[in-house]
Amino acid sequence: MKLLITGGAGFLGARLARALLAKGSVCAQPLHKIVLADQVRPSADLVSDPRIEARTGALVAQAAGLGGEGFDGVFHLASAVSAECEADFELGLRSNLDSTRALLDGFRLAGNAPRLVFSSSIAVYGPDPAVPLPPIVTDTTLPLPQTSYGTHKLVCEHLIADYTRKGYVDGRTARLMTVTVRPGQPNGAASSFFSGIIREPLAGIEAICPVAAEVSHPVSSPARTVEGLIAIYEASRDAFNSRSAMNLPGLNVTVRDMLAALEQVAGKAACARVRFERDERIARIVAGWPAGASAPRARALGLKADTSFADIVRQYIADCEQQANAGETLKGLGR
Amino acid sequence: MKLLITGGAGFLGARLARALLAKGSVCAQPLHKIVLADQVRPSADLVSDPRIEARTGALVAQAAGLGGEGFDGVFHLASAVSAECEADFELGLRSNLDSTRALLDGFRLAGNAPRLVFSSSIAVYGPDPAVPLPPIVTDTTLPLPQTSYGTHKLVCEHLIADYTRKGYVDGRTARLMTVTVRPGQPNGAASSFFSGIIREPLAGIEAICPVAAEVSHPVSSPARTVEGLIAIYEASRDAFNSRSAMNLPGLNVTVRDMLAALEQVAGKAACARVRFERDERIARIVAGWPAGASAPRARALGLKADTSFADIVRQYIADCEQQANAGETLKGLGR
Repeated sequence: MKLLITGGAGFLGARLARALLAKGSVCAQPLHKIVLADQVRPSADLVSDPRIEARTGALVAQAAGLGGEGFDGVFHLASAVSAECEADFELGLRSNLDSTRALLDGFRLAGNAPRLVFSSSIAVYGPDPAVPLPPIVTDTTLPLPQTSYGTHKLVCEHLIADYTRKGYVDGRTARLMTVTVRPGQPNGAASSFFSGIIREPLAGIEAICPVAAEVSHPVSSPARTVEGLIAIYEASRDAFNSRSAMNLPGLNVTVRDMLAALEQVAGKAACARVRFERDERIARIVAGWPAGASAPRARALGLKADTSFADIVRQYIADCEQQANAGETLKGLGR
Repeated sequence: MKLLITGGAGFLGARLARALLAKGSVCAQPLHKIVLADQVRPSADLVSDPRIEARTGALVAQAAGLGGEGFDGVFHLASAVSAECEADFELGLRSNLDSTRALLDGFRLAGNAPRLVFSSSIAVYGPDPAVPLPPIVTDTTLPLPQTSYGTHKLVCEHLIADYTRKGYVDGRTARLMTVTVRPGQPNGAASSFFSGIIREPLAGIEAICPVAAEVSHPVSSPARTVEGLIAIYEASRDAFNSRSAMNLPGLNVTVRDMLAALEQVAGKAACARVRFERDERIARIVAGWPAGASAPRARALGLKADTSFADIVRQYIADCEQQANAGETLKGLGR
């Protein structure tokens, strides 16, 4: 069993690779090799595993070659983030659209039809003057993206569905909820504060929350997100049973819920490090996002959301401690 | 006022060009030139008008150049049809996806942001095991295309919405209903019989209807379709008021209604030339199509469907008589 993870050196990609290596098999087949394709090199712990092979470079340039390598399965996670695509339109086209198309055509021309999980995003949903967003989006809510990032994710969903219908890949699309708590530095994405208001206080640093405490949003821990991606991969074609994308389960929480969980787990002092300072630009963007999501089709496959935000905070702390034992600190926890 | 019509030598493109030439102005601006870009040359009546300029060749190769010509407006109709795209996947990618992308990037790089009407299709709708199709699709029905043709139309809808949001074009997408009665020969499309069962009997030829008389479908006459495209072009951005595509109005008719109208207009003898002979392949495809459509947003712009199928039959006969006066016959009426 030989797998490809695009974006394999990124936060989710590396975590997925570690989970797959620990599991040792996929669909009851022993795992022999995982190729991690990314613009940067994967971290040392991954590269040191003999089953890992790193391919460093732009995906759009690598895609045709990768197509012909006979992968049994693919997790296609590589993506420029939302804020990057808004700032640089051509970067978004190249990184999120052309690279996916090149990868799909690579597989089509090679003819071995690998199983492929594509990570789409809740960013496919957006409000429109003619079509208001429901309070809780579900698998069948009409996607009307309001960013280039969301547009390209939705376009790739439909291309993958059509390449699947024609038998060129066995594609499945999972729409990821906002993943939190992300380690590392704020990344400039409008959603960055959903991690920052937990991560910084735990590291003893003040954090600014740019939106009101009433703001609600569907989130998912990194561990549950990775579990979801693997379960969607392992689902039989019949169980998947649709050309349409499905939401991964999310926990619908308000900022107030998140801070209450932080206080519950880490105490009043941690929570007091969060200061509300409204940022109109970010508040306006966030107001266009779904306040909540449901995922009936993923739940029918047995997938579950995190049970509480306190559990998500505890998971982050446990991850930090594990990394700290490996020589890193709460502050410096990056990729 | 300088316009571009892609697919400008085709059935709808040529008809649109004639309507615009007759109107003489668009958005109250006098019309100086229409460039007809197509793989084939436009018919003689069009080429002889001094305001018409023909550009013959593959659109994907012409697109970048056309982008820089400073068009005030564009009707982007060029498209390989559904059956062609199913038979030749790469043709579909090239003709319906790459050419649109190249055109949009041509306009983006030139920077003059023309107004652009894109002809999408009711083929964006399709049933799915997880999402059954409602009996009447509307502007906000979730599109889940079941063909490459429908997939590429939907992908282009979303790309155009995003290029519009960024100010690179002023794009508007109209989803066309099945246009009937088309002149000429059957074209191998699964929908071909929706014209054939009227056109052939009127020309004294037997026609085969491959589906049951109860089959229902939304249709539109060529004249109403062209009116719709022009009205969508002339609508102000505010009146259009949405990033999402809109259906053009259609008349929801059964095959039985169509044949009753044929009998009403042309007599029992014409109607008797239609023979029912079920074709499982076509019947299965047609069973996945919407049985009807509504178009609340287009109606809010003042657009109307044809009032009866008998009117559509009369319109076809009048068109044939006009062409016959110009030296053609009911049988040979083509492009």
